[in-house]
Amino acid sequence: MNKIASRGAEQFDPALREILEDLIFDYAYALDDEDIERWPQFFTESGMYHLTTKENYDAGLPIGIIRCVGRGMMADRVKAFHTANIFEPHSYNHMVNRPLFAMGATQGTYNARCNFQVARIMQDGRAEPFATGRYLDVIVVEKGVAKFQERIVVLDSRQIDILMVVPI
Amino acid sequence: MNKIASRGAEQFDPALREILEDLIFDYAYALDDEDIERWPQFFTESGMYHLTTKENYDAGLPIGIIRCVGRGMMADRVKAFHTANIFEPHSYNHMVNRPLFAMGATQGTYNARCNFQVARIMQDGRAEPFATGRYLDVIVVEKGVAKFQERIVVLDSRQIDILMVVPI
Amino acid sequence: MNKIASRGAEQFDPALREILEDLIFDYAYALDDEDIERWPQFFTESGMYHLTTKENYDAGLPIGIIRCVGRGMMADRVKAFHTANIFEPHSYNHMVNRPLFAMGATQGTYNARCNFQVARIMQDGRAEPFATGRYLDVIVVEKGVAKFQERIVVLDSRQIDILMVVPI
Repeated sequence: MNKIASRGAEQFDPALREILEDLIFDYAYALDDEDIERWPQFFTESGMYHLTTKENYDAGLPIGIIRCVGRGMMADRVKAFHTANIFEPHSYNHMVNRPLFAMGATQGTYNARCNFQVARIMQDGRAEPFATGRYLDVIVVEKGVAKFQERIVVLDSRQIDILMVVPI
Repeated sequence: MNKIASRGAEQFDPALREILEDLIFDYAYALDDEDIERWPQFFTESGMYHLTTKENYDAGLPIGIIRCVGRGMMADRVKAFHTANIFEPHSYNHMVNRPLFAMGATQGTYNARCNFQVARIMQDGRAEPFATGRYLDVIVVEKGVAKFQERIVVLDSRQIDILMVVPI
Repeated sequence: MNKIASRGAEQFDPALREILEDLIFDYAYALDDEDIERWPQFFTESGMYHLTTKENYDAGLPIGIIRCVGRGMMADRVKAFHTANIFEPHSYNHMVNRPLFAMGATQGTYNARCNFQVARIMQDGRAEPFATGRYLDVIVVEKGVAKFQERIVVLDSRQIDILMVVPI
């Protein structure tokens, strides 16, 4: 587990935290607003999105439920969402915790970790708990703009609904 | 849907964000503490509270579940809560996400958007998921004090419990 | 109920808020990562942890579900967790709201209040709503490091699962 330990006295610049947090919450709200077209734009050109379970992640298994490398592959997925998939319409409501940040491996990159709990709202209006887990991110900031270089979504449960059409 | 897009490099003053966020969380905690008397005070004198469903909101329908215009009307609602209503006692637990902010239409006003998920705790001690949705706010800051000029509560689900006595 | 009222124009230094919030979220993520060994370290040497129900708390009853005074007693609890207890393995997912802060009774101490909703993930992979409530904290900051002097966990419901092995 990518553990971001308490930083003690070391502090983050509040303005930087603002930029990083805005990325994380803008992402969540875009998905909740069903703005799936915006989804690839939250990543760098070569960014990676990996949705997996805690069980697989802890075992170091590269197998996941969704894995997209590069914005092109993400755009394909968005396209497939509109054209190919047949599923009951639904939307999400993301609850996301305050992230903890740490300096990344290279200059201008930051590691982030936060929890989420997502409710799913079905066609008939039911809202129900859908997925819980954590986001493990590597974020790049260039000219004041933050993007995900890597977003690993670790689901707590291995009982995943097969209806995982929209990224979390 | 009132969409607040990513602001890129443009930033909010952290001290201003503090004032705006405190309003949003103070509101949530006041309701959770059953301090319903404080509810109208979170609004400007002519402030508007509108609780509706996503379905109605997206269709542009002005119909809602609760609609109060002005602090006087809110005070009446609080009074009715104590004197007229018969219902099983319950309390709330609000989970509210970090808001995204944007400059409002006029000087000193700010638009905010955040998600919520509310649990309801009944007399017998059951705690259960109650409502999910988003807050769409117009906030005014005067002399360092923030108030809602407009708070639109958009519920994700159209399956609303008829027991909507206390505002969300 | 320890009510932290709106502070109006009075403001917190963003850097101080950062330190205080990091403690609260680091605590949550440590428990979610099953790093229970770290749990006593979030408290001062003589720190107090008290887990109780809203009913008992509002009635001023000192009775609680878990009560530890001092880091030694917490370490004993952690040890018991590993050696003595027999229970179905499970983990948590904490959702914690943005806290409201107020100056504490003595220099360098701060009162905090925030809500939480915890999901529990069982061995078989089920994730389910487990507990909702609020944290009422007294936090001490010394040389830039924040610790809980007092953390009172007030559960909304009096229907508590007997499987309360791991602190919340």
